[in-house]
Amino acid sequence: MNKTFGLFFTAMSLFLATANARAEEPIEPIPLVKEINLAQVELGKKLFFDPRLSISGFISCNSCHNLSMGGSDNLKTSIGHKWQQGPINSPTVLNSSMNIAQFWDGRAADLQEQAGGPIANPGEMASSHTLAIDVLQSIPQYVTEFKQTFDSDKITIDMVTLAIAEFEKTLVTPNSKFDQWLLGDSDALSPKALAGYQLFKETGCADCHNGPAAGGASFEKMGVVTPYTTENQAQGLSGVTGKDSDRFNFKVPTLRNVELTYPYFHDGEAATLTEAVDIMVRLQIGEKFSDEQNAEIVAFLKSLTGDQPSFTLPILPPSTDKTPRPKPFD
Amino acid sequence: MNKTFGLFFTAMSLFLATANARAEEPIEPIPLVKEINLAQVELGKKLFFDPRLSISGFISCNSCHNLSMGGSDNLKTSIGHKWQQGPINSPTVLNSSMNIAQFWDGRAADLQEQAGGPIANPGEMASSHTLAIDVLQSIPQYVTEFKQTFDSDKITIDMVTLAIAEFEKTLVTPNSKFDQWLLGDSDALSPKALAGYQLFKETGCADCHNGPAAGGASFEKMGVVTPYTTENQAQGLSGVTGKDSDRFNFKVPTLRNVELTYPYFHDGEAATLTEAVDIMVRLQIGEKFSDEQNAEIVAFLKSLTGDQPSFTLPILPPSTDKTPRPKPFD
Repeated sequence: MNKTFGLFFTAMSLFLATANARAEEPIEPIPLVKEINLAQVELGKKLFFDPRLSISGFISCNSCHNLSMGGSDNLKTSIGHKWQQGPINSPTVLNSSMNIAQFWDGRAADLQEQAGGPIANPGEMASSHTLAIDVLQSIPQYVTEFKQTFDSDKITIDMVTLAIAEFEKTLVTPNSKFDQWLLGDSDALSPKALAGYQLFKETGCADCHNGPAAGGASFEKMGVVTPYTTENQAQGLSGVTGKDSDRFNFKVPTLRNVELTYPYFHDGEAATLTEAVDIMVRLQIGEKFSDEQNAEIVAFLKSLTGDQPSFTLPILPPSTDKTPRPKPFD
Repeated sequence: MNKTFGLFFTAMSLFLATANARAEEPIEPIPLVKEINLAQVELGKKLFFDPRLSISGFISCNSCHNLSMGGSDNLKTSIGHKWQQGPINSPTVLNSSMNIAQFWDGRAADLQEQAGGPIANPGEMASSHTLAIDVLQSIPQYVTEFKQTFDSDKITIDMVTLAIAEFEKTLVTPNSKFDQWLLGDSDALSPKALAGYQLFKETGCADCHNGPAAGGASFEKMGVVTPYTTENQAQGLSGVTGKDSDRFNFKVPTLRNVELTYPYFHDGEAATLTEAVDIMVRLQIGEKFSDEQNAEIVAFLKSLTGDQPSFTLPILPPSTDKTPRPKPFD
């Protein structure tokens, strides 16, 4: 009996250690993807990589949300049709399904609404929803795949954006060192990263950067204590609400994989994590970290890099004689 | 004894049918890749997808040789740094290891020599070999991988181009319907495709489009019977040799996967296979095919689409604080 009880006790401890470990922390482990429409995912993956959704035939979703590079383009602001300079830093698509809304100013309610934006934006892919559908509808392999996925002979933009959004829901990055630690492996974090996390909580960073994505759950003013100065024209939420008080209210960016998603802030003006931490602390809480404190925070931030999406590069179905041709130079 | 002999005879027949089938044909099956340096391949795959080899941080080898789209960009002429219009149609990288030389005018002897060109070409990736090396040398994960691959602490441009070339050697596309037929499966080709292949041989197309790549083995004049007129400035081999007689001598493009590598010719002016066949027949042999004959040739050409390269999208190592930043808008 003693032995049985001992085994039971050990098993319960392990269960509690893994299932409930550190349930009190402000950052939660990334939930695994459990309910997904695989047909939509596979179709959406092709569409995500298909530059024929742009008028030039050159720019795809993956151009600015490059899945080889943390789901971002690692540029201050993005490059659009005819090399137009984009107005804002391209946010990572990784874990974006956890965002309260999409875009820095939250003007799209969800991933599906977001996906339609760049296709028709003259400064980005510069196509139109009508043209994008004409292109897809001219390609028999797409027609068949849409039919099998949506039970419809006619492709609509809602199907296109739904499939892209469903693919994007798979782009979660579990198993970071920090998540391993959250889930009970006390050795997963270095002492430096652990010290950084304590400091992160104590100084209030976790007031905004919390939840499974360590951000993305609220809109907050950039420059609570010290105003932020930038030449970038983006105004944040006020551009959506029209309220002056919403100026510089931005969706809090996720800190997941932040090691990969440089440069930082909506204007991309912070080139390194060290710089970003320094500016944030000054703007938001009016403090100045020592070099050692800053390095501890950075060590913690780097522990948030998770397993990157792993999949076979999609092969796109070829255009046909009827497919509208790209017009890159018109 | 009879039974044993019978089995032996059957086995020999099968052997002959598969190993020696149709050995007399001008087009040969694509040889499988047998000797390869896997370390270089894996490193070269990352480099092929890494836009940090361009000054903008936006253009990678895969931008114009898109492995989701037949190893080409499906544009008339390519888009380079700051959206410059390229001078020539981007040739497919698929099966390019079989080419007698690289580029349309053959100015690079092999894949390694080719790979260094676009990186430093002001109209393409617009970087320099020095800057590209500085970028790679600043990234510890690359430094480690180069050290493990080349046993050197110092990265050189020769290592970069060698790795890219080794990866490109893996980009062969075996198992097309036509190769299945060549290797003994008489049912692999439709009667229409087979008729097209007979016509292809009878009219002399195979005089230039032959060997395993159905092209790439020689330089030939475009416009043997009827001169070709185009606004494109490319002159072909004469740009390399300086000889007027070499004007419009181009490397014969491979017909492998030609269904995927539209538009056609060095100027990309033929939008469809039907158009390309019609023009070629007129220019090179001074004939005009009936619609039915043209369709037969096109059916044969589509039988040359092979298995596309299949691999996991590479994840690129992140830049560090010391990495030179991309300059897309300077």
